[in-house]
Amino acid sequence: MTQTIYDNAKFFAEYSALDRSINGLDGAPEWPRLRSFLPDLQGLDLLDLGCGFGWFARWARSTGANSVRAIEISQNMLSRAQAMTNDTNIIYEQADLDNTKLSEHGRDIYDVVFSSLALHYLANLPALIQQVQTVLKPGGTFVFSIEHPIYTAPSRAEFVTDVETGRDYWPLDSYQKEGLRVTDWLAEGVQKQHRTVASYINLLLQAGFQIVGFDEWYPTPEEAEKHGWHRVLERPIFLLISAVKK
Amino acid sequence: MTQTIYDNAKFFAEYSALDRSINGLDGAPEWPRLRSFLPDLQGLDLLDLGCGFGWFARWARSTGANSVRAIEISQNMLSRAQAMTNDTNIIYEQADLDNTKLSEHGRDIYDVVFSSLALHYLANLPALIQQVQTVLKPGGTFVFSIEHPIYTAPSRAEFVTDVETGRDYWPLDSYQKEGLRVTDWLAEGVQKQHRTVASYINLLLQAGFQIVGFDEWYPTPEEAEKHGWHRVLERPIFLLISAVKK
Repeated sequence: MTQTIYDNAKFFAEYSALDRSINGLDGAPEWPRLRSFLPDLQGLDLLDLGCGFGWFARWARSTGANSVRAIEISQNMLSRAQAMTNDTNIIYEQADLDNTKLSEHGRDIYDVVFSSLALHYLANLPALIQQVQTVLKPGGTFVFSIEHPIYTAPSRAEFVTDVETGRDYWPLDSYQKEGLRVTDWLAEGVQKQHRTVASYINLLLQAGFQIVGFDEWYPTPEEAEKHGWHRVLERPIFLLISAVKK
Repeated sequence: MTQTIYDNAKFFAEYSALDRSINGLDGAPEWPRLRSFLPDLQGLDLLDLGCGFGWFARWARSTGANSVRAIEISQNMLSRAQAMTNDTNIIYEQADLDNTKLSEHGRDIYDVVFSSLALHYLANLPALIQQVQTVLKPGGTFVFSIEHPIYTAPSRAEFVTDVETGRDYWPLDSYQKEGLRVTDWLAEGVQKQHRTVASYINLLLQAGFQIVGFDEWYPTPEEAEKHGWHRVLERPIFLLISAVKK
């Protein structure tokens, strides 16, 4: 069972105060590049894995998507998503993506499967990717973002300042050792699953996807200046992938 | 003009003493995985970019390849390659891959283009990849290894030992800052070109390739034990990619 850290009161309060929680997609710096991986959504049927507060689902409908099924494990997040939504073509569903059977929805039924910063929590990702392949229509697109493997790998994921040069560096270790990582981000003991870039790509290739988009997001100089993100150029935070069902 | 570090006497002497120089492909730990990306070479025409001592070219012919054109910038390496070769279907050619016109050979003429640990020296890689696309037959395969971007990125590419824990980590910085890196490996002042994983993938996608193989090589426990490679699991050294011309 995936940890439901979003139902931890401290984590949820702090997460709710983030830019991306208050301002939705516009508060997520990687969103413009992730959006560029999406086709025109007019008339399409979408599945959103780890929908959070439902910002993507509502945006998709506002740009003409026919329907969105939006899955989330956290009841806290779902309740808030539902309170912000007045649209019967968005169906919210509580489920653990590590144990869900997406194919109970049917086969070849979605044009786009989307997931923002959720898949790196899953121990059972290979099974989910197979299911995504099943529920997508042929030619359909799977667009997702995750925490970058360079970001999830270290045993101690905090920048180190070199005493001689004053430079900051990211203490990368354990890159090839996949599995559980426990970090203190917003709350103590947040559990993630580290996988290598090769593993993500090979899970997709083996499931019959073709890679069509790949982006290690980083900020423009203006964004870096505005948000004080000077360290982001030292190592990537987000990995964005687009893959098509062959 | 690419630095011809292999024509530096100290570098050449030390390089010549490496396992991979003395024992050829069998001395290169990543070779079995790179080989697994190759099709059956029987009757095929190959191009080898950065052929070194010609180990791959001779192996390819021994497994049935029809012909190999093998390009190398270092006259030192080419002379030794030629001295070790007695095969008129291997054509050696001295050229700087940053300034070569592969398409002077013709279009759609090779079944396989191969390159081992050469492309991370090239400033002009986008132009070369376009040329590879031109000279490959449709459906042909481009198989290459490079130093992994995590390996080439740091401003100071040496492991650091954490004084508290005794753990080794790789001081990753400058990942998003592409361009020249100068390191001291076998000789002082070796010049490489750092690119991100995203850049390598996008150069291929934009040139009309489909990614079919992707491997961040790491050793088996037996190899790690035999060679004392315990640090290799902390961060990848080699990136191996296979791509097909659509």
